[in-house]
Amino acid sequence: MKLRKFDDMHLHLRQGEMLKQVLPYTVSQCARALIMPNTSPAVLTDQDLKNYRSEILQAAGSAEAGFEPLMTFKITPACDSSSIDNLKRAGAIAGKLYPDGVTTNSEGGVRDFRALFPVYEAMQDLGLVLCLHGELPGAFSLDREEKFLDVLQEIAARFTRLKIVLEHVTTAAAVSCVSALPSNVAATITLHHLYITLDDLLGDRLNPHNFCKPVAKRPEDREALIRAATSGSAKFFFGSDSAPHSIEAKECACGAAGVYSAPVLAPLLKQLFDDVGASDKLADFVSRFGAEFYGLPVNQDFIELREEEWLVPEELDGIKPFMAGSRLRWRLA
Amino acid sequence: MKLRKFDDMHLHLRQGEMLKQVLPYTVSQCARALIMPNTSPAVLTDQDLKNYRSEILQAAGSAEAGFEPLMTFKITPACDSSSIDNLKRAGAIAGKLYPDGVTTNSEGGVRDFRALFPVYEAMQDLGLVLCLHGELPGAFSLDREEKFLDVLQEIAARFTRLKIVLEHVTTAAAVSCVSALPSNVAATITLHHLYITLDDLLGDRLNPHNFCKPVAKRPEDREALIRAATSGSAKFFFGSDSAPHSIEAKECACGAAGVYSAPVLAPLLKQLFDDVGASDKLADFVSRFGAEFYGLPVNQDFIELREEEWLVPEELDGIKPFMAGSRLRWRLA
Repeated sequence: MKLRKFDDMHLHLRQGEMLKQVLPYTVSQCARALIMPNTSPAVLTDQDLKNYRSEILQAAGSAEAGFEPLMTFKITPACDSSSIDNLKRAGAIAGKLYPDGVTTNSEGGVRDFRALFPVYEAMQDLGLVLCLHGELPGAFSLDREEKFLDVLQEIAARFTRLKIVLEHVTTAAAVSCVSALPSNVAATITLHHLYITLDDLLGDRLNPHNFCKPVAKRPEDREALIRAATSGSAKFFFGSDSAPHSIEAKECACGAAGVYSAPVLAPLLKQLFDDVGASDKLADFVSRFGAEFYGLPVNQDFIELREEEWLVPEELDGIKPFMAGSRLRWRLA
Repeated sequence: MKLRKFDDMHLHLRQGEMLKQVLPYTVSQCARALIMPNTSPAVLTDQDLKNYRSEILQAAGSAEAGFEPLMTFKITPACDSSSIDNLKRAGAIAGKLYPDGVTTNSEGGVRDFRALFPVYEAMQDLGLVLCLHGELPGAFSLDREEKFLDVLQEIAARFTRLKIVLEHVTTAAAVSCVSALPSNVAATITLHHLYITLDDLLGDRLNPHNFCKPVAKRPEDREALIRAATSGSAKFFFGSDSAPHSIEAKECACGAAGVYSAPVLAPLLKQLFDDVGASDKLADFVSRFGAEFYGLPVNQDFIELREEEWLVPEELDGIKPFMAGSRLRWRLA
């Protein structure tokens, strides 16, 4: 079957060798992807952004024509209207706010969300999207997202023309909150949070490959995410948060957070939407609502999925993909 | 300071080489320990029990005189009054019930708790204690203990002369439930559940050394456990559930559940009870209430703790102890 290519509105591509290893999986399934800036070092300036985009396009090589990286920068207390203006001129379409210490490379992130009001103001004026990692630092792990919703509501109430995305929502509470806010507030939903709960991390033996931030929550939260993703509401669109780490970094007591879902995006999303009887809602979720929210035209590229059993490899270039070892019903043609 | 030796009323000693490595830490701090039967193969018959006790006493070597292993057997649907009678004659003081698949070596465990009514009856008649791993199979991980409380209440209501221990309680709900039941029902509390919450497993990077079953819960659950342990109620006594696994088994994607607390029992419990202003409650919790519940005389051995900073080693014979790398205020003299 023919399917419009995805827009992956939340993606970690890393740098160097790992970028080259993981990028082909995204390029083969996605027309565009919103590239997270929490590289090491992070994307902070217009020059960082230009360099990173060049590195991505170079890694994409001949496939470049079919793939557009949508660039972002990391919001820090050092941002001002002039640096943000430069980032926008360099091609940024969004800024990403990481609360302090809540995920990979978020050390030294934000604790005082109000101190950044001038930054949100500048972004609003420039038409840049504010992407939020919505977890409150210092709160108990399972409560971090829900406790962040007050911050979201305060920013949304104060900056009514600012487009805000609550990234990778994991709770029924976040779904309700975003649903109730005006249309300038949306949320991304990952592939893995549609599939797993906390039990897939720790219900049996500990499975570090299902460890991610925010951590997967309860079965009823997962059900709320599935309902949101298949609801036809334009407030919920796809962002994989695919976040590759070497098997070494995941398994050997390093405990890195992130699920590498890029290689299995289309087969697994197709399967899920079929399973819940929402096949007709898939295209809007993965390739229309996100584009519309970001003010982009719908992409004009297509992929072909074949209904054929496919065994997800245990390892791809030293990285374990999501659902490694599982048999899927669809595969890329 | 002088402290009566502990009775560790819930301990995994393993077998073979690992038994020899871990036993000295228990022997140096505990007069007795209730030895869990989920070895591989499990302790099922009177002969298994005799063999395992011999192996333990042999491993204890010259320290043997100062240490008494309190033996248990694993309850299975195959138990009958005759096999239980033989186990009692061989020295068993308790039987341990593992629900199916909820922890290490619990595969093939119990799903139908009512089918074992004749077993509970026989144990009641023989004065054997019923030790319960209180998690309901199939429930969501964080709910397993709370959902098991119905099973506990049903057994307690039906077998009013049966002594029952709800092992390693982790939730405020379990504390309330046990508190409200008659005096034939008690609970053990581990060292690690007095110290950690789910955040210590997954709040920052994933820390497999804090992965245990039942998993540590919320801060308010931990507070309820501390209140119970320091309350002076004879219904709550110490059982470490120290459960050694090689670093390999913990870290390298094997994901084994269990915290190895045996080497740090006395220093950490002393520190905790001091910190919460309950120093006077420690001795009853670790060396009186358990003995009384099991109908044993209070042990007559003592240890000496010195107030001296002690750095917990990162590794002991290839096993990482609880709180490895932490500085403690007390050490064994």
